[in-house]
Parts: sequence; structure tokens; C-alpha cells
Amino acid sequence: VTTMTEHTIKAFDADLQDLGRMIAEMGGLAERQISDALEALKRQDASLASTIIATDARIDALQREIEEKAILTIARRQPLAVDLREIVGALRVSNDLERIGDLAKNIAKRVDAVAGQLNLPTVMRGVEHMTEMVLSQIKDVLDAYARRDVAKAVQVWRSDGEIDAVNNSLFRELLTYMMEDPRSISVCTHLMFCAKNIERMGDHATNIAETIYYMVEGRILPDERPKNDTTASTSIPFMKGP
Amino acid sequence: VTTMTEHTIKAFDADLQDLGRMIAEMGGLAERQISDALEALKRQDASLASTIIATDARIDALQREIEEKAILTIARRQPLAVDLREIVGALRVSNDLERIGDLAKNIAKRVDAVAGQLNLPTVMRGVEHMTEMVLSQIKDVLDAYARRDVAKAVQVWRSDGEIDAVNNSLFRELLTYMMEDPRSISVCTHLMFCAKNIERMGDHATNIAETIYYMVEGRILPDERPKNDTTASTSIPFMKGP
Repeated sequence: VTTMTEHTIKAFDADLQDLGRMIAEMGGLAERQISDALEALKRQDASLASTIIATDARIDALQREIEEKAILTIARRQPLAVDLREIVGALRVSNDLERIGDLAKNIAKRVDAVAGQLNLPTVMRGVEHMTEMVLSQIKDVLDAYARRDVAKAVQVWRSDGEIDAVNNSLFRELLTYMMEDPRSISVCTHLMFCAKNIERMGDHATNIAETIYYMVEGRILPDERPKNDTTASTSIPFMKGP
Repeated sequence: VTTMTEHTIKAFDADLQDLGRMIAEMGGLAERQISDALEALKRQDASLASTIIATDARIDALQREIEEKAILTIARRQPLAVDLREIVGALRVSNDLERIGDLAKNIAKRVDAVAGQLNLPTVMRGVEHMTEMVLSQIKDVLDAYARRDVAKAVQVWRSDGEIDAVNNSLFRELLTYMMEDPRSISVCTHLMFCAKNIERMGDHATNIAETIYYMVEGRILPDERPKNDTTASTSIPFMKGP
């Protein structure tokens, strides 16, 4: 067991605070990227889409900075197990935030493809609803991270199934549109990928909730992960082939 | 600068060797998951699909083991910058392999949805071709990782565009099938997601190539990343809406 001097402890606390600030910055950026991606999709705003794509590099850079800071902190301060978990937690959360940023960027990349073809208000309301749910999940889980609030983290973790359920119904709705009007096929496939991206953001919020549990409790969440995503096995029965 | 004793150096080398072995095991598992996923899709083999889904937990567990080993090695041995890069590299590579495993699992989850509907030999040949390309990329990049072979890593990195190109043409082909025969819409959307998953495996192989470069050279790859994926902006012009 390493004994920390008072100086080391102070330096270590400062390192942890830096990491916390960097995660908060990254989280704020990721949230904005998501709401911007929805806006760009709704307004078919190519210029906003370009901004989102460009901003993703900042999120990637923050992840690298957090990784470097985390690794150097471990190497320099030789923290105890409980403190190591804090740093491993920062590493994991930044990984998930980086993936969330990628998913927002992928939605932005599709804005161009749906431009001028997007006349599906019901579907767009579904996409909007999913986005709001995911944003609220991410806000809550980042809050839980900042306060090390395990109860709140577990709450986020339990509610992931709701987003999957909306995605499932959206997936079926899109399949129906495509069958009714072949001209909508192209735009509907892009919206399916957008919805899938949003659903996966929810998975990353769930990952972050698991990380918070691990950081505070020192072990992994005991329950089975809540999963309602059935789009991978959704097919329209009457379309079964020969 | 930390001075390592001879004992520490030996212990550190043993830690690095352990990490290398774990990455090799994880890589081998990921490769098998990919080829099994293709087999399950081709043969519409629900039982193989279940095995793939179950095996993914082993890949996830290996990632956690690698993370723990890497973090403890840094905390205990306080390695120098060049050695830190080795460990950070192992962390990054295991992240990418875990993601590859997830993508293979997602393909396996779709086997059920396409069962009995899969009668698209041309498309399946395209999917098979993409899978072979990705498997060869992953094999090469894991080889490059084991030998710290930067030249080979850069070669993998440069060839990612080829997989994207196949995915683009497959995407257009699938759109065409869907328009010609609405009964194929459901199965075609699943195949689009499968193809996208394979294309993203290629992105992770590219990430690993970048990590090898960083480990050996101590800086990031200078060139712009090769990217030919245009499916996000692919729409069929004549389908442009009102």
C-alpha cells in the first residue's frame, strides 16, 4: 500500500478536479451536438450540419486530453484502489461521450441526403421524442456523475428500455411508409439509421450509469441490463418470403 | 524521471507480455465472431447466432481484464513515457476490439429477422466480400500490433477506403431492390444495417492502425484519414421529393 504525502494528496485532488471539469466540458459539448443534430435534421440545415461535423474533432481531442491526464495521474500519484476507480471512471465516461459525439455527427452527415424529401411529420415527431428522451438521460447521468449519485445513475440505467421501445415503434412505422410509398424508401432508411444512432446514444448513457455505480460501489451493477431493443429482429410477418 | 530497478523492469516486461497475450486472445475471438456472424447470416443459422450473442460476453470480460491489468501496471510500475504508450495502446486496441465484437453481435441479432426471406444472392456476395476484406484488415492490423510493424499498420490504414466503396455500392443496390420489390424492404433494411456494421469494423481496424503508429512513433498519424463512406449522403436523385 502506498502512503500519500499531503502534497501528493493535494496534487491528486487537483488532478481529479481537472478530470471532472474536462468531462463536464465534453458532456456539455455532446449534449449540444445532439440537439444541434436534431435541429439540423428538422430544418434540413446543411450549414448547421457542417458545424456539427467540424465540432466533433473538439470532442475527440477532449477524449485524448482526458486519457493523457488520467494515465499521467495514475503514473505520478500511484493512487489507491478507490481513487483508481475514479480515474478509470473518467476514462470510461469519456469513451462513451466520444461515441455519443460520433453518433450525433453521423446524424448530421445524413441531413444532406434527406434534404427536400423530408415530409414525414409523424416520423419526425417520433425522432424528436426519442432525442428529447436521450438528452434527458444524458443530462441526468452527467449530473449523477458530477455528484457521484448512485441512486440517480441506477434510475437512468432502468429507463433505457423506454427509448428502445420508441425506436421499435418508429422502425415499424418507417417500414410501413416504405412499403406504402417506394419514393420514401431512401429518406426512410436514413431516418432508420438516425433513430438507431439516437437509441445507441441511450446505450452509452446506460454505460455511464454503470460506470458511476462501479466508481462508487467498487463492483458492477448486479442486475441484468434492461434491453427492449427488438428492431434487430423486427420483420413484418406478412412479408415473410417464399 | 523514475528509475526502474532490474526487478521492476522484469515485472513490467511480464505485465506487457500478459497484455499482449490478452489482446491476441481478444483479437482471435473478435475474428471468429465476425466469420461466424457471416456464416449465421448466410445459412440463416439461429443456433450459431445465439452462440455469437453469448460469446460476446467473453470479449467484454477480456476488455475489463485488460483495462484492470493496464491500470494496475501503470500504478505499480510507474513506467516512462515510451512504456506508457505501450499500455495506453493496449487500452485503445481492446476498446476497438470490444466494439468490433458488439458489431458482430448486432449482425447475429438480425439473423432471425431475415430468416426465410433471404433470397438475394448478389447482395449476399457483396456482404461476403466486405466481410472478407474486413477480416483481412483485422488480421493484418493485429499482426502489425504484435510485431509493432508501423509500415504494415499504415498499409491497413490506407486501405480502409476500399471497404467503404463496397458498402456504398451495396447500399445503392439495396435501395434499388427495395424500390423494385416492396416485399424485400424488411430484409434489405436489415442487410443495410449488417453492411454498415461491417464497414464500421473496418473503421475500428483503422483506429487500431492509428494506435500502432502512436505507440511506435509517439505521435499521431500526420495524414488525413482516408474516408470513402458516402452512404450517409446517398440518396437516389430521381426520388427527390416534391
